[in-house]
Amino acid sequence: MQVTRTLAKFLVTHKAADLPEAVRHEGARALLNWVGCAVGASTHATVKRALAALNEFSGPRDATILGRSERVDIFQAALLNGATSHTFDFDDTHMKTVIHPSAPVLSAILALAEHTKVSGRDFLHAFILGVETECRIGNSIFPNHYDAGWHITATAGVFGAAAAAGRLLKLNEQQMVWALGTAATHACGIRETFGSMAKPLHPGIAARNGLTSALLAKKNVTSAEQGIEGRRGFAAVASTKFDAAAITEGLGKSWEISSNSYKPYACGVVIHPAIDGCIQLRNEHKLKLDDIARIDLKVHPLVLELTGRRKPKSGLEGKFSIYHSCAAAILLGEGGEAAYGDAIVRNPKVIRLRDQVTAVVQKGVAEDQVHITLTLKNGRVFEKTIDHCAGSVDNPMSDADLEAKFRAQCKGLLPAAQMDKLIGLCWNVGTLKNAADIARAAALVRTKVKAKATK
Amino acid sequence: MQVTRTLAKFLVTHKAADLPEAVRHEGARALLNWVGCAVGASTHATVKRALAALNEFSGPRDATILGRSERVDIFQAALLNGATSHTFDFDDTHMKTVIHPSAPVLSAILALAEHTKVSGRDFLHAFILGVETECRIGNSIFPNHYDAGWHITATAGVFGAAAAAGRLLKLNEQQMVWALGTAATHACGIRETFGSMAKPLHPGIAARNGLTSALLAKKNVTSAEQGIEGRRGFAAVASTKFDAAAITEGLGKSWEISSNSYKPYACGVVIHPAIDGCIQLRNEHKLKLDDIARIDLKVHPLVLELTGRRKPKSGLEGKFSIYHSCAAAILLGEGGEAAYGDAIVRNPKVIRLRDQVTAVVQKGVAEDQVHITLTLKNGRVFEKTIDHCAGSVDNPMSDADLEAKFRAQCKGLLPAAQMDKLIGLCWNVGTLKNAADIARAAALVRTKVKAKATK
Repeated sequence: MQVTRTLAKFLVTHKAADLPEAVRHEGARALLNWVGCAVGASTHATVKRALAALNEFSGPRDATILGRSERVDIFQAALLNGATSHTFDFDDTHMKTVIHPSAPVLSAILALAEHTKVSGRDFLHAFILGVETECRIGNSIFPNHYDAGWHITATAGVFGAAAAAGRLLKLNEQQMVWALGTAATHACGIRETFGSMAKPLHPGIAARNGLTSALLAKKNVTSAEQGIEGRRGFAAVASTKFDAAAITEGLGKSWEISSNSYKPYACGVVIHPAIDGCIQLRNEHKLKLDDIARIDLKVHPLVLELTGRRKPKSGLEGKFSIYHSCAAAILLGEGGEAAYGDAIVRNPKVIRLRDQVTAVVQKGVAEDQVHITLTLKNGRVFEKTIDHCAGSVDNPMSDADLEAKFRAQCKGLLPAAQMDKLIGLCWNVGTLKNAADIARAAALVRTKVKAKATK
Repeated sequence: MQVTRTLAKFLVTHKAADLPEAVRHEGARALLNWVGCAVGASTHATVKRALAALNEFSGPRDATILGRSERVDIFQAALLNGATSHTFDFDDTHMKTVIHPSAPVLSAILALAEHTKVSGRDFLHAFILGVETECRIGNSIFPNHYDAGWHITATAGVFGAAAAAGRLLKLNEQQMVWALGTAATHACGIRETFGSMAKPLHPGIAARNGLTSALLAKKNVTSAEQGIEGRRGFAAVASTKFDAAAITEGLGKSWEISSNSYKPYACGVVIHPAIDGCIQLRNEHKLKLDDIARIDLKVHPLVLELTGRRKPKSGLEGKFSIYHSCAAAILLGEGGEAAYGDAIVRNPKVIRLRDQVTAVVQKGVAEDQVHITLTLKNGRVFEKTIDHCAGSVDNPMSDADLEAKFRAQCKGLLPAAQMDKLIGLCWNVGTLKNAADIARAAALVRTKVKAKATK
């Protein structure tokens, strides 16, 4: 069984020209969505505090923190962009593994691209290869690895970041084997942190560590030969299931990014069907929060596993509460970041309805499905079944939806003209002479307060 | 069960004055041993290549790479000193858990001390608290965690580094809880890398990550409240055994550093009894390599688990071969770094004898024991039992032994006067006004070639 080497060989030999056009376009969609997520959370306390902790230690300030004016070294940029783009839990999802694929990979290679010039074509290619790597590794160990408590976006993500950065660094096959081995020994991230600031740091940590693994390999720092499949390798150590063929079979024939999905709502993806249904019921029947006696949901098991928080205390915790999410959707008619502020989570009326939401697991309900029974105080009962929630692979957000989401995320943070430019760069990433243009176009340009900002 | 918080409270409230004198002295012994190990490997290819990969990205060059002239930022120093001090597998060992306690903790806090001035007294105290943290966490999950394939020096070490750095940063109790939580989500390092350059990187990675965790917590980046004991916490996710009381009971009453041990030989500690026995037989009977037909060992199970490499190809791999180690001990009469060069591992005579060494597990043989049957070509048979190998807790290296080991490691790398100064600083660490003096005294001072070296 030669898993790591087979994967490494594919990563260093695959040709950009052999990517199907639809796959390339999906890469651009993921890029646009990711940039919007990163900019959207660029003023959140998580990145502010992390930057306050690390800024004085920055090396050469080659790289942009998207949506901010400060520049930092490429490792800090990888860490911080990884964190912002996952802060609102609004980034993309590979539903088969619940991996958020873009954040670890793009955070690593966009920072690298600001240091080492790469074309948009190579950048997009490396990104897609990185997603392929992390999602295939995820497929090989899911669900056991995730169920054990590992945050798979982080643990698989580090391989994706190493693979993509390694491709851009033009590693040879042996170096790519070492990069994957060093990524394997960096794999970390536990679900106990969910609901705290450490959770969004995970894809950033994966990005920083994957980038480090590739840079070390480029200078021939050796590592395990079988970092993925070895007796003491990543899969054996961190999972009770390992399906090696999920990594090695059909490489270059199928593309995991094709099953990527994008969130219309800023919370755990398993809540989305319920939000969809609540918004639809609200709008169809012009419901108000006070009209409703109770909401009873039939859900997929992961809903309770991941988002069963009965009494969230903050906006961040609210993202992991199916109960809060339904109440907020009824109040606001949306599931964007507005539904996950600290104030709304503590709103007594929202809390009142939240406490009247029940969710029970029902066999046969898929992850993108829900059945809702909504009971009014006057005794009327409405039913709603969502088969494929908005943003799922079978009911995807359109390109226009993604643009609208991007604008909503960046509103108030970047001028409209800058948003337009960024959207254009993302759609046309494959033709850019310099992929770093995307990062630079996402920087906040301070004009009047420049003297203060650069202090 | 309040494990993380109980530990955090202890870490922020314990007083240096309450450390027993013997514990403080053991801290100084560990420090001296660690500095020698770091300097001793300061010209190894591992650190050269890693530095070549990372140097251009360094932030403010506040910190020393021990034994070298280059200065780097504190994260890189933590990483690289962690790597050098473990490169020759010659650093200290907490036998109960096979954790190498000093490397993750000292690499983090010595770098930090070069950035933020701390007294030698506080430095020594933080070091001892860091060792206490990592070894207690190790005790709570050993052996299951290690047997699963985790490199416990790395996975437990990150907690030790975070605890010690957090103490020096004067974290409050809540911040220390977060630092430990963020350390928990950084815990990584798999045994598949053993025999490659990635393995010695592990304590460096732990040091860098633990330092990062403490710095993030200082700026109130939140994390899990129960990073160690939670349902998806470190212990549950990465071990099938968890004895919480091993962490929380008797804090401040017993000290894990008291059972620290130091290696007279530059290889896996479980090989040491066999090397002891081979050297004794060689010297007692004036044996030469060519005299010997075969060597048969009865050993503890970990010997084969960790050091069963039949055909090592490099010096690094030789450290994980009980067979090579016995042959080299017969040839050289020692088990220092000289026994683990690439040349000796490939020496045909050494290979010939190595192939005639057998090792079988025998119940009742402890980790610091071995039984040797050595058969000469002329038919004579010698037997030797080692009950407590040199360097074990029951047969410790004396202070003078540690000084001699230090001098042997630094020979040819630092001038004799500098060695004397460093030895003095280590013994007197508790009285230093500035702990960073130790790092600065361990820098290689280039005189004539300065212009080249700083390029």
